[in-house]
This record gives sequence, structure tokens and C-alpha cells, in this order.
Amino acid sequence: MKPNFTLRLRVFNLNCWNIPYLSKHRADRMKRLGDFLNMESFDLALLQEVWSEQDFETLRQKLLPTYPAAHYFRSGLIGSGLCIFSKHPIQELTQHVYTLNGYPYMIQHGDWFCGKAVGLLVLHLSGLVVNAYVTHLLAEYSRQKDVYLTHRVAQAWELAQFIHHTSKRADVVLLCGDLNSHPKDLSCRLLKEWTGLRDAFLETRDFKGCEEGCTMVPQNCYVNKQELEPFPSGIRIDYVLYKAVSGFYISCKNLKTTTDHDPPGVTPLSDHEALMATLCVRHSPPQHGPSPTRRPVEQSPLITVLREAWTELGLGLAQAHWWATLAGYVIGLGLLLLVLLCALAVAGGTWEVVMLLFTPSVGMVLGAGAVYFFHMQEAKGLCRVQAELQQVLGRAREAQDLGLEPQPVELLGQQEGDRAEEQQ
Amino acid sequence: MKPNFTLRLRVFNLNCWNIPYLSKHRADRMKRLGDFLNMESFDLALLQEVWSEQDFETLRQKLLPTYPAAHYFRSGLIGSGLCIFSKHPIQELTQHVYTLNGYPYMIQHGDWFCGKAVGLLVLHLSGLVVNAYVTHLLAEYSRQKDVYLTHRVAQAWELAQFIHHTSKRADVVLLCGDLNSHPKDLSCRLLKEWTGLRDAFLETRDFKGCEEGCTMVPQNCYVNKQELEPFPSGIRIDYVLYKAVSGFYISCKNLKTTTDHDPPGVTPLSDHEALMATLCVRHSPPQHGPSPTRRPVEQSPLITVLREAWTELGLGLAQAHWWATLAGYVIGLGLLLLVLLCALAVAGGTWEVVMLLFTPSVGMVLGAGAVYFFHMQEAKGLCRVQAELQQVLGRAREAQDLGLEPQPVELLGQQEGDRAEEQQ
Repeated sequence: MKPNFTLRLRVFNLNCWNIPYLSKHRADRMKRLGDFLNMESFDLALLQEVWSEQDFETLRQKLLPTYPAAHYFRSGLIGSGLCIFSKHPIQELTQHVYTLNGYPYMIQHGDWFCGKAVGLLVLHLSGLVVNAYVTHLLAEYSRQKDVYLTHRVAQAWELAQFIHHTSKRADVVLLCGDLNSHPKDLSCRLLKEWTGLRDAFLETRDFKGCEEGCTMVPQNCYVNKQELEPFPSGIRIDYVLYKAVSGFYISCKNLKTTTDHDPPGVTPLSDHEALMATLCVRHSPPQHGPSPTRRPVEQSPLITVLREAWTELGLGLAQAHWWATLAGYVIGLGLLLLVLLCALAVAGGTWEVVMLLFTPSVGMVLGAGAVYFFHMQEAKGLCRVQAELQQVLGRAREAQDLGLEPQPVELLGQQEGDRAEEQQ
Repeated sequence: MKPNFTLRLRVFNLNCWNIPYLSKHRADRMKRLGDFLNMESFDLALLQEVWSEQDFETLRQKLLPTYPAAHYFRSGLIGSGLCIFSKHPIQELTQHVYTLNGYPYMIQHGDWFCGKAVGLLVLHLSGLVVNAYVTHLLAEYSRQKDVYLTHRVAQAWELAQFIHHTSKRADVVLLCGDLNSHPKDLSCRLLKEWTGLRDAFLETRDFKGCEEGCTMVPQNCYVNKQELEPFPSGIRIDYVLYKAVSGFYISCKNLKTTTDHDPPGVTPLSDHEALMATLCVRHSPPQHGPSPTRRPVEQSPLITVLREAWTELGLGLAQAHWWATLAGYVIGLGLLLLVLLCALAVAGGTWEVVMLLFTPSVGMVLGAGAVYFFHMQEAKGLCRVQAELQQVLGRAREAQDLGLEPQPVELLGQQEGDRAEEQQ
């Protein structure tokens, strides 16, 4: 990258709401999405909820001239729903499937069968290494009684860790996706604090689109109005997040969302609004070693959010153990019933009663066995995240003991860049 | 790290064969392992098959004065069995659980319930960033009819990708573990070619221990002699692999395995032999930009092994589809039987026949449904790995078109280091 050179990166993000047989006007919306992407010719288009691999293939064929590189991230039984289209060659790619992703018996939600994941692609643009991540976290079906909160927090931590560990040689890190979390939700704060990623909507000075940057708005004809009643302007759960690592500075020149009249069409492209951002990367101004901030440990946002996440996971862990214990009792009851039935049969009891109760008893033992196994596995997953959080908390406290504000080191360079830009 | 400074790293690796209720002399062996580790005071001890978290805790307490840092990698229902003990503080840690890990209905093997994984810990030693990985790949129960070959190859690829993407800023990469693969097996070659890791046994000039570096030998009283019949000297399936990234050079000063008389004791520490390596890291001699090797594409070992893995995964994919189709037919048959039984009941047929056949029919549908879902998920996982291999193959071919030998770039620096050492 030459001095004074600026890399412009135009990115598009959309949760496509593409569920075969269930989503309305699916084929028409996908067709119009393809036309729009071809017309706008972004550098990168990162999509979620493209549940049909056939739809991805159709889109790939259509976008081939403008976006020669594409990838569909396969996982779980149904898939991750994630895919990307790139104008530039993909140098490397991989993915990470989240350990915890809802409950298999919540068939009405179906999240468990999806294999929600984070996909990574590495691009080399103008001599810079760009790590672009796309993800879709577990849905929030009820804000009042969010049964998936713990799993979403665990996913946010796994996402943050995946980005943290895989982006160490990247010059630019970009994360797009549907986090199913409001900006001040624990998952969102945990992700941002641990990775140092910054929110395009909060950073840009040129925003056009839905009020408060919302990406699910009541004006959208596909949105369930009742669910959005507590939020008259809508909710902001889709994000473009970014950071530049040492030596570079990134800013969001402009950010747009689609609205009910833009792009023009009979219906919107999805039940979510798309995000379109123009990012600029340039050399960072010379850094003069920012003096470490000294703050009491209680005030460090990283430590606060790590503790909060740890507590939330503890609650989930207690619940997982409670369910496993309950399932254990049901297994015991079922086995007892089976023994009684066998005794009844041997003693020459009523054959019909034995036959009638045999199936439900076996079903009870097998069903409760599956629930037991599932929640024991869930507990292991939650313990694992807690242990990782504990380790980071330990390191953060050590940093604090040395008089430094505990935060990922990469942030320091970025903040310095900000200050320099403010002065320009 | 000062010029002319050499970092010595003493590592210990053992598959502990620690299965509660099943493994012989478990408590005694763990006690002696603890004594041995305390006495030898390694920098790092990386253990596999510590299936009981309680045993880990006991060991942790015992090793605390010598190894103040320790971590147990939790995953799956039973756990990953992986844990580490370190003399030095752990800076960071995370893990990746393999997507494919055997079949749930192979209860006699139990691998599916374990959540086999790779654990990563980052250490800062003398100013160097050391990424240490510990893993345990899926077992090979029969070499003649290895039903898990495809899954093991997929695991080896995920392991290689995890190392590749998380070690980009590491100065030294170390992988220890039980790969359940012989040195020339596909999984082993794939891992080594894609990561550039080198085998301590092949590299060292000072080896002491079992013949040919074997880590499962017939002399070990816990080993099933029958299984080792085709291999009179034993098999080598446990490894210490390493590499240094640009600017540094790593070599294995000496490597030892335990034998039937060392360490002295009534019985061995495990059914596997332990590996003990002393690694030396120093500044790399100045590099003069190695001239890219020109070779026809057919001869590139990376491309060859990628192709081989792709083909193997293709076979696994065909088998997964075959099982899913078969399960689909069984589901259809079960449903037909249920409809017939309902019709028989409505028509006033024999009540006992209906009752007798109802349970097996429901069981058939549910069982086949589970098999169907499992193999569809397996197919998605295999497709995912194939797509990643395809992408790497594409990039490797592009590199070849530019006249370069396709190989991970890190290898070039390492090879240059080798040449320099040979000249000294």
C-alpha cells in the first residue's frame, strides 16, 4: 500500500429471510436482490438466512460476472444460512460452528437444526490483509422471557474468540451480520469489548436510512407488527463492525439502510433492512505510544462485561443442571414403571394394560434420556465458556495490577488514530 | 529475545488411558504420572484421555507447585479428555471441537459422545509467542476396515485449518497429541503439508526409546497384543510436531519415549508411551529469499495430498448419502406400517396385533429419522471440508501457474533455516 493511498471498501449486509416454503415472495425477492447487487457492484456482499443451497446457486450464477468469488458456509442439518459474494478473489476461508444453539425439542424455532456459525474469508486488497466475518446469532423470540439469552451470550463469546484468534495478522477486520442483539445487550457489548470492533452506525457522520439505524422496522410489510410494538422506531440487530490493526486506520465514510421505498419495488428485499457501508482504510498517523489509562478496576468496561457474562452463564448452567436432574428423575420413574410392567406380565396381569403402558414407558425413558444427555452437554459447553472468561478476567486483573486499563491491546492504536482524525 | 539467545522448551505428551471404571490401575497410574511430572519439571505437559474431570482436579492440586497453570478442555457429553499443565502463565486459550466424530449408534466405541477437540494455549516465553496445541483424533479400531477414516481425515483438515488460522502471529507452533494415524497415513500427511509442521522423531538426531519411535508397543502390558500383531515393533500414532515462523528457527535437541522399564515401576504409565522432547528456538540465520522451486503440479506434495483427501471425503459423502437414503426408505416403511395398523384398528382388527406392532413401528420411524438426520448432517460436514479443500487447491494451482511450488509460505523460511543449520 502506497503512502497516502486510501482503500475504499463497499460492503452490503442482509438477513435475506429466505426460508423455503415459509417466506413470502421468496423467488421474486431473491431475483431483485441479485439485480440490486449486480447494479451496485459492492466489493463484498454478506448474506444471512439463505437457507436453500439451490437459491445460493441461482444467485451465484446470476452474480458471477460482478462477483466472481462466492462461498456458502455449510453446517448442521439445514445449514448456517450464511454466504458471501466477493468482487475480489478469496485467499482463504474457514468457519466455526457455535457449540450451543438452542434446544432440539424447540422444534417450532428450529435453531438447533441450523448449525449457526461464523464464516471467515481472507482477502488481499491493495496489499492489505482483510479478514471479513459473517455471522447470524441465535434468535430472540421473546424479549421479556428470552430463553436463549445464555446461548446467545456463549455464541457472542465464541464469535469474539474466533475473531480474536484468527485475525492476528489481519490489517483490517470486518464483521457483518445479524447478531439478534440490541446495541446495549450483553452479547453485543461482550463482542465489542473483547474484539475492539467498532459500530459503523455509531462511528459514521453520514448515515441515511431508517430512524436510529434500525434494521427491523414496523413499516416493513413482512415484519410482525405486534412483536415490534414496544419499539415504535424498530430495532437495530444487524451490524457492520470493523477495526484496523496497527499501522492502519479505518473509518466509515457513509452508511445506508434500505427503507420501505428504497430500493424501489412492490415489496422489500427481506423482513430485515439491508446495510450498505463505505469504509476507508488508510495509513495510521504516527503513533506516540498512548499513555496507559489508569482507572479503578470497577470502571473497566471489559472487566464489567466479562463479569456480567460470567454471571449470566452461571444462571444458564444452574438451569441446565436443573433440567438434567429433572430428566434423571423421569428416567428413574420410567425404568420403575417398566419393571412394574414386567412384574405384572410375569404375574399374569392384564395383557392389555401391559401393552398399553409399555410404549409410553419406553418413550419416557428414551425421551428423558435424550433431554438428560442434551443438558449435560449444554452444561459442559457453558462451563467451557465460563473457564475461558475466567482466564481472561484473570489476565485483565493482572493488567490492572500493573496500573494499565485492561483492554485488548489493539484498541490503543485505533483510539490514537481517532484522535488524529478528529484533529484534521 | 536477545541475539544469540536460545529458548529451551521441554515438553511432555501422553495419552493417559484414563477411563473411569474401565482402565486398569487408573488411580495408581495417575499418582505415578503426577510424581513423574513433578520430578521432571517440564515446561509443558499435554495430556489426552483424562476423561474424568475429578482426576484432572486431583492432578492439578498435586502439580500446582511445579505447574501453576493448568486447563481442562470441556466439550461434548463426556469431554474432550484433553488437558494441559504449564510451568509458565497461560496468556490466552481457546478450543475447537471437531464437526465430525464418529456415529452416535456406535455406542461400543463411544467417540461420538466425547466431543474430540483441539485445545490451544498461547504462552509468552522470553519475548516469543508460543502457540501450543493439544489434540486427540478419532480412533482407528480396525486398520483393515477403518469405518472412521473419512471422519479422521476431516478432523485432520479442521485441525490443520485451526492451526493455520490461529497461529499467524505466533513465533513458535507446537502440536502434541494422539493423531491415531501412522506417519504415512493421509490424515498425518494432510496435517503436515498444510501447516508445515515437522515431526520431532524424524528431525532429531538424538532419540532414545521404543524402536522406530513407536508409542504403542506390544511390550506394554495394557496393550491388546492381537491388535498389534501386524506391527511387531508397535505403531507410532502419538506425535510432537513443531515449526517456527519467520525470523526464528526451531530444532529438536532430543526426543525420548517411555519404555517398559523407564520410568521404573510395576506397570507402565498408560497403554501409550509418553513422548518427551527438548526443543530449542533461536534466531534464524539471515535469509536470502529462497528462490521459488519450480516443479510440475503433479509432483507437489501439497496438491497431491489435497486431492487425495478430497477423493476420500467424496467416498465418505457417497456413503453418508447412501445411509440417508436407506433411512428414508425405512421411515417410509414405518409410516406405512403405522397407517396400516391404524386402518386395522379402525376396521376392528385384532387389538393385540395392533398393540404389539405399534411400538416397533414408532421405534422404526423415530430410529430411522435419527439416522437420516445424522447422516444428512454428516454429509453437510463433509461437503464443507471438500469446499475448503477445493478452495485451497484452486489457490495452489494459481500459485503453480505463476511458476511457484504450491506450499504454505511459512515453509520457505523454515527450510532456509534448515539449510543454514546443516552448514554450521
